[in-house]
Amino acid sequence: MIIVLKPEATKEQRILLIAALEEKYNVTVNTWVGVGSTVLGLIGDTTQVDEDWVSAQEIVDSIKRVQEPYKKANRKFHPGNTVIELPGGQRIGDGELCIMAGPCSVESEEQINYVAKRVKAAGASFLRGGAFKPRTSPYSFQGLKDEGLDLLKGARKETGLPIVTEIMSAAHIEMFGSVDIIQVGARNMQNFELLRQLGKTDKPILLKRGLSSTIEEWIMSAEYIMAGGNDRVILCERGIRTYETATRNTLDLSAVPIVKKLTHLPVIVDPSHATGKSWLVEQMSLAAVAAGADGLMIEVHNDPKHALSDGAQSLTPDQFDRVAAKAFALKKAYDEIEKKIL
Amino acid sequence: MIIVLKPEATKEQRILLIAALEEKYNVTVNTWVGVGSTVLGLIGDTTQVDEDWVSAQEIVDSIKRVQEPYKKANRKFHPGNTVIELPGGQRIGDGELCIMAGPCSVESEEQINYVAKRVKAAGASFLRGGAFKPRTSPYSFQGLKDEGLDLLKGARKETGLPIVTEIMSAAHIEMFGSVDIIQVGARNMQNFELLRQLGKTDKPILLKRGLSSTIEEWIMSAEYIMAGGNDRVILCERGIRTYETATRNTLDLSAVPIVKKLTHLPVIVDPSHATGKSWLVEQMSLAAVAAGADGLMIEVHNDPKHALSDGAQSLTPDQFDRVAAKAFALKKAYDEIEKKIL
Amino acid sequence: MIIVLKPEATKEQRILLIAALEEKYNVTVNTWVGVGSTVLGLIGDTTQVDEDWVSAQEIVDSIKRVQEPYKKANRKFHPGNTVIELPGGQRIGDGELCIMAGPCSVESEEQINYVAKRVKAAGASFLRGGAFKPRTSPYSFQGLKDEGLDLLKGARKETGLPIVTEIMSAAHIEMFGSVDIIQVGARNMQNFELLRQLGKTDKPILLKRGLSSTIEEWIMSAEYIMAGGNDRVILCERGIRTYETATRNTLDLSAVPIVKKLTHLPVIVDPSHATGKSWLVEQMSLAAVAAGADGLMIEVHNDPKHALSDGAQSLTPDQFDRVAAKAFALKKAYDEIEKKIL
Amino acid sequence: MIIVLKPEATKEQRILLIAALEEKYNVTVNTWVGVGSTVLGLIGDTTQVDEDWVSAQEIVDSIKRVQEPYKKANRKFHPGNTVIELPGGQRIGDGELCIMAGPCSVESEEQINYVAKRVKAAGASFLRGGAFKPRTSPYSFQGLKDEGLDLLKGARKETGLPIVTEIMSAAHIEMFGSVDIIQVGARNMQNFELLRQLGKTDKPILLKRGLSSTIEEWIMSAEYIMAGGNDRVILCERGIRTYETATRNTLDLSAVPIVKKLTHLPVIVDPSHATGKSWLVEQMSLAAVAAGADGLMIEVHNDPKHALSDGAQSLTPDQFDRVAAKAFALKKAYDEIEKKIL
Repeated sequence: MIIVLKPEATKEQRILLIAALEEKYNVTVNTWVGVGSTVLGLIGDTTQVDEDWVSAQEIVDSIKRVQEPYKKANRKFHPGNTVIELPGGQRIGDGELCIMAGPCSVESEEQINYVAKRVKAAGASFLRGGAFKPRTSPYSFQGLKDEGLDLLKGARKETGLPIVTEIMSAAHIEMFGSVDIIQVGARNMQNFELLRQLGKTDKPILLKRGLSSTIEEWIMSAEYIMAGGNDRVILCERGIRTYETATRNTLDLSAVPIVKKLTHLPVIVDPSHATGKSWLVEQMSLAAVAAGADGLMIEVHNDPKHALSDGAQSLTPDQFDRVAAKAFALKKAYDEIEKKIL
Repeated sequence: MIIVLKPEATKEQRILLIAALEEKYNVTVNTWVGVGSTVLGLIGDTTQVDEDWVSAQEIVDSIKRVQEPYKKANRKFHPGNTVIELPGGQRIGDGELCIMAGPCSVESEEQINYVAKRVKAAGASFLRGGAFKPRTSPYSFQGLKDEGLDLLKGARKETGLPIVTEIMSAAHIEMFGSVDIIQVGARNMQNFELLRQLGKTDKPILLKRGLSSTIEEWIMSAEYIMAGGNDRVILCERGIRTYETATRNTLDLSAVPIVKKLTHLPVIVDPSHATGKSWLVEQMSLAAVAAGADGLMIEVHNDPKHALSDGAQSLTPDQFDRVAAKAFALKKAYDEIEKKIL
Repeated sequence: MIIVLKPEATKEQRILLIAALEEKYNVTVNTWVGVGSTVLGLIGDTTQVDEDWVSAQEIVDSIKRVQEPYKKANRKFHPGNTVIELPGGQRIGDGELCIMAGPCSVESEEQINYVAKRVKAAGASFLRGGAFKPRTSPYSFQGLKDEGLDLLKGARKETGLPIVTEIMSAAHIEMFGSVDIIQVGARNMQNFELLRQLGKTDKPILLKRGLSSTIEEWIMSAEYIMAGGNDRVILCERGIRTYETATRNTLDLSAVPIVKKLTHLPVIVDPSHATGKSWLVEQMSLAAVAAGADGLMIEVHNDPKHALSDGAQSLTPDQFDRVAAKAFALKKAYDEIEKKIL
Repeated sequence: MIIVLKPEATKEQRILLIAALEEKYNVTVNTWVGVGSTVLGLIGDTTQVDEDWVSAQEIVDSIKRVQEPYKKANRKFHPGNTVIELPGGQRIGDGELCIMAGPCSVESEEQINYVAKRVKAAGASFLRGGAFKPRTSPYSFQGLKDEGLDLLKGARKETGLPIVTEIMSAAHIEMFGSVDIIQVGARNMQNFELLRQLGKTDKPILLKRGLSSTIEEWIMSAEYIMAGGNDRVILCERGIRTYETATRNTLDLSAVPIVKKLTHLPVIVDPSHATGKSWLVEQMSLAAVAAGADGLMIEVHNDPKHALSDGAQSLTPDQFDRVAAKAFALKKAYDEIEKKIL
């Protein structure tokens, strides 16, 4: 970390600050005195240096991090890719394209079983479905809750597909005991109490990027989970909020290679929530594959026009067949190109 | 609600959609057939009409709400201002300027008592202070937690100032039993489980605007609390996330008159978090008063350079004296001008 | 266009408004009187209806466009793809991947000729290079200007590659007479005087999306050029401004399929300016191809570390060889997949 | 400027870079070698150091400016406030509140003369009105152009109010010869050719902030004008583009004190364009005064519902009477408070 001091800082103030930094954070401080400005350089593990504390010091003009503020998620300290493996053998992050598909909301046994069979047949290796639904309006359908979880488990039994579903409160962690991957939604990406509690579990966590989170904040939320002892985090890009209204959110595909460079965690992309429009899902799925994503999360509904939530962005099973076939085919071509052209 | 149908919609499809709408949502539907497009108009209470469901219908091109999607917070159905009154007689939203002040984090008995006395002397009518702190990094100071709550209660006993502090989990509601106003932070504005649980309490809730929430989403979060039976919600504008980096967030003062027009709830402004810079707090406090805010929430620390969090945006008690004096004086002038010039 | 009237609008006011609309814009107006609100529907060509004028009418609550506000760029009225063809036979928008490459700034004869040969050898069909450079600081290098144009023409002579270069003022149009494609930069996307003058030329215009333009505004700027009689517009997505700081801009690849649906114009993608980082160019080029882009615009410099502008985002010729090879290979695979999977 | 080198940078590379920096930019370079990273500090005038060039150097990890990149606009080198004075004695930036008012578009002699008289009577000291109008659609009213300029001059003759009007092309500078203040609109804030040409004139320039410009970019555009020799620049905050749709733009009032700290130029606020809604103009005008603005720019139309552009945000002369009276009264109170409370 580099600290630029104000021009008016006296030598005495500087010495006091250096002593405080060295004592507080166990770092070594180097001083570079220039004409007009003095700069301090902190050496050692600066992950725990509190930027707010430093910025608040009277003689501090500004600071600049050189090291990333995360450790456990950092590729520098963990060069190999993290591969999440499930008891059934499904893997995320091992170089194969992994597709999670299913309805936004679980609505009935018939629906979820039908969709599960269809997405499995198309090549999906995980069934996604919402039992607890975060809705902007208290008057909208909020999900089937525990009944929805039971239906998901039933569909898992029918198809063998592990299930991914969203948690909305740390109070539900026990209830989610037999869920295979617990999803943290965009609105809860900085629900730190929830992240902390999930860090104590041994479940893989699918962490969606917040509506307006920076990539660094998103990784810091992964770090929260990992700091608690749970290293199995999957990051999911789902679009960010911008001024553009043609799509629900703006899908930030650059985030994929950036996150893969900065961390060792798998990254998947959700084109359904990102765009909010079913007709864009195919094209954006292909773009995500070419951006290097480890997987896709896609909404599929047997009957989108009767879906109780987010119908506008769901594919029919027939449409999904096509998207999955194209995505797998493109991934294969992409891998061959990567091998051929070095 | 107005529904624009796609040009290719057949008469049969239209009739089926109308029947579904009338049955599902207990509304009456009028049809206007134009050249090239057909429009449906829904009459009745459309608050509960699920936009997602409607948008997903095959023949629907787009929709437009005419009524707001909230009822309990809506000024149309509750023309008078809601005034929040506390047992000690403090009032928010009654036309007087209400100032809540105190440190970002409670750090020690000495600190909180000293700051409480100073802000009371300067005219603040509430003491704010964080016991549970949402921090981007798991390695940053997370607050004194229950010990911090106890220190706040001690300072209340010393000064008579009611206390405002942030809750981070529904699991803590009982622990917050003797807090006077429970604050929901920006990162939890759409933690719907928390909002729902707070709706069952009888505590005034200070609801901060989310980092990138629209005004409508913010009001919908108030509606969540109110739908549960708790009408005492105070809205707090604290800046929104934009591309500008000169301030931590962009303070959206237009939100003040807009929220006051759309709802009957009191609105306060937090210039400390919005700007992230203590030197901007004075000017933005005055601007907030002139924008019509019911109150201000200001960070004050006895010793900002030693603050354990957010020091860069805290005022010293002496600086706060000046800001409070100016804000009250400007409010007085503003009220006189409002009376004189009609 | 649908116009929602305020509840308090009287019948007399409504009749006056309808008469004004019919006279002013030569449209037919249908009225739908509902309980609590009245809606007007405009039939006919509403492209020229001035939303500002309508919104300002006292009894108007809000409006909703049903038709797009552009005609010449609209795919509805021109279903086939526009293919831009140059005298040398180069084509943009014909289904093949078209790559435009070259340095941000033209710096010397040696530089531009060397880069031109290298990008041609790698498969680029156009040479891009800046002679007039828009720079945030008046103290930065502003381009070689007319001398730069001459060097570009020299490189064209050497290689046969048509040249693409940015214009910064309508006063330069004559000077750009022998440029093959004139580029309008992001900062000038709403320089309407420039657009108008370019509409009178017969040059293909490459129109970059503005830093924070909506897709609709971008298409409207194309419409400006086309309204003047010049139909040969190529749209170029180059990232939009968001709060994220990990990249210079956020590349909005969803814009590609959206623009291709709404208009008949070719769309290319500039991953160099979008990301601002050379190491992201390869991955984002591949993603752009998979998103359906007609072409790529890529910065290549013989010696990025000595580039006079935008060096951080330039590829070396060797790096470009690899990116181009991969992009063409992926496009081939993509086309085969599109043919096979319907 | 501080330059952080990559850990892998060799001593030889570092020495070469330092030599290049010293030669190229006439600066002195200090080196601070830490464990794991090396930092260079540039001493001297770094205004002309090209960040792009530095960033592109192979061994450079990142850079941090310590000095601002502007000189002529910088308050550090010009501590006193710039006051713009017109031949008629009107002053901007002298501590008094200056109001510029008038219609968005000049429409007729009768209109502009009537509005001019009314705004003068209410205390405005400048008449604003558009003759050349930047419109998103080529099919919208584009202004009366040179005829509009003549009408403005006529109104100036009638009332003595100096006129402020927008220029859209450097080709029009001669035609704007008798305009008192030339306005550069938000869409042309980075039309560098226009800025450069305006820098050669002796006219005061009112420079609106771009739709999504940072404060620094805005000041750099002022620097363009000043670098050409024209020091008389007035900055005008008019709202920035965000995701919020309740207002046309988000008025960024924090920009007022920030710009006043960083530069010595006057800053005014345009609440009409910022909010896009006439009912918000009064409240936001008062907030702007309390934020420390030197002036206001307000749209007034004799008959907003017949305005040919931007009617929704215009005030009637009667409404303007009230806004102006309140704004002047609040400014008086504000100044008294500033004097009393130090």
